[in-house]
Amino acid sequence: MIRSLGSVLFASLLTPTALAADPPVTPSAVVAQAPASAWRVIAADDLLVMTIAGDKRVVIQLAPAFGPRHVGNIRALAKAHWWDGTSINRVQDNYVVQWGDVTEKKALPPGLSPTSPADYVRSIANVRLAVTPLPYADPYAPATGFVDGWPVAMDGDGAWLPHCYGFVGVGRNMSPDAGTGAELYTVIGQAPRQLDRNIAVVGRVIEGMAHLTSLPRGSGDLGFYTADEKTVPILSVRLASDMAEKARPRYEVMDVGSASFADYLRLRANRKDDFYDRPAGGVDLCNAPVPIRPISVKPAP
Amino acid sequence: MIRSLGSVLFASLLTPTALAADPPVTPSAVVAQAPASAWRVIAADDLLVMTIAGDKRVVIQLAPAFGPRHVGNIRALAKAHWWDGTSINRVQDNYVVQWGDVTEKKALPPGLSPTSPADYVRSIANVRLAVTPLPYADPYAPATGFVDGWPVAMDGDGAWLPHCYGFVGVGRNMSPDAGTGAELYTVIGQAPRQLDRNIAVVGRVIEGMAHLTSLPRGSGDLGFYTADEKTVPILSVRLASDMAEKARPRYEVMDVGSASFADYLRLRANRKDDFYDRPAGGVDLCNAPVPIRPISVKPAP
Repeated sequence: MIRSLGSVLFASLLTPTALAADPPVTPSAVVAQAPASAWRVIAADDLLVMTIAGDKRVVIQLAPAFGPRHVGNIRALAKAHWWDGTSINRVQDNYVVQWGDVTEKKALPPGLSPTSPADYVRSIANVRLAVTPLPYADPYAPATGFVDGWPVAMDGDGAWLPHCYGFVGVGRNMSPDAGTGAELYTVIGQAPRQLDRNIAVVGRVIEGMAHLTSLPRGSGDLGFYTADEKTVPILSVRLASDMAEKARPRYEVMDVGSASFADYLRLRANRKDDFYDRPAGGVDLCNAPVPIRPISVKPAP
Repeated sequence: MIRSLGSVLFASLLTPTALAADPPVTPSAVVAQAPASAWRVIAADDLLVMTIAGDKRVVIQLAPAFGPRHVGNIRALAKAHWWDGTSINRVQDNYVVQWGDVTEKKALPPGLSPTSPADYVRSIANVRLAVTPLPYADPYAPATGFVDGWPVAMDGDGAWLPHCYGFVGVGRNMSPDAGTGAELYTVIGQAPRQLDRNIAVVGRVIEGMAHLTSLPRGSGDLGFYTADEKTVPILSVRLASDMAEKARPRYEVMDVGSASFADYLRLRANRKDDFYDRPAGGVDLCNAPVPIRPISVKPAP
């Protein structure tokens, strides 16, 4: 500690006037200091609130721009209260937590959209928003970046959401089944990017992830709970837009086109501070999560 | 399901004699079918057995070739029973589980080696074993591959173990402190590769990872348990080589120079089967864990 403090003092002696004007040197400092203009409110229609046993709340941000048919179905399922009384049935370490109807017999509400593997990738023509590129190599895609608050992988034809930690996908049967949206999972380990473009990714967990990751792992095949183990009851799933205003979670996401986000990305790729000596010079798509924070200001009465 | 079955039947009609000779199409099938010659026994001196509250067993494989001074210290600490009565003190979601002496006052056994940041990277001259390259881009290092059962990142000067899920690193204070080995952590989320070459990586959890990942997250700063939360007692930590032979865990690791490992890597990067339609054409260093399995054959009496 003494030697470390010495280094800091030595640096400050070399540049004695620089200290006050120094820019933030950690990603978290950038986030803490980002101006209000660097944040975008997440629409209440894009927030899915799942309450599980113990009244624990999990909030998922939906991504309608990337999975419009599946997200439409998920909204319809929430409005029908379809998940109430279902359960978390699978917890596979370093892979996924999965929930839905364990009986696989519960009737779906009418009017759900048909889905297909074509829904896994958005054509470039449909992604009209600006892309902030991530200028580091990715083993899974020719290009990566950030669009409208989301990380994306891209090729010449389209863009898709990656299977990052906390991202939510749609369980399905064997290909070409693409799932309805009734069976969902979230990633709880190293990003299983081999699933990209093989499954629909529809959102990400932005609150309560630890309620899912700390669940006991299932001892059955693929981490499913066996008959001797208890599934975890889901009490309710609602869109925030269907909740009383004062009960709604409210979140904002950093604008990926902002100067703050550029600083954040640069520092995620180049850690250099009292703890980090050797910057990596790069960062992977799933290791630079777009900053998201609760909105503490209450809505006007 | 019917359409999927149809595809399989159609393929078999095109190549009616190919079925029996087909190579395995999934990584797990390759592992299951690997011959005995593709496996290498892990030395008992490289297995660290940690027993935590509830008599839950966690087994760590040490990597003496990559962290010789730290691994030497860890062996000395285990022989001194130094961790007995210490605890797991930090569980930070999508980051690490960390254990050691929560008081930070317990005296260390005599004779531990001094360490420094020079210990984070092994010079190429010291890595004499064959490298199996991973031929996909990595955002954190110029080259990656596998050496002697371990994934490695490399540059022109040296090789180092990456911070993959389940890998074990040495907690330390501010740089240039490099830690003794008494404070350890394991990765429980997306690989925090920014820590590579900034911290010593000394091994990986090969059994009981779920006992750590399913622990409640700490609500204090950095995921440390607060005074209101219970740390998790560590009952004992022993080298397998210091345990009675019949009580020892016994494991083997796939030879990364074997044909089986080449097949496994190819399929991890190119999933194409009844479930996967679209192969990624690549895989990241932390998403192709070297296969490890318990040895079920009992030692000769």
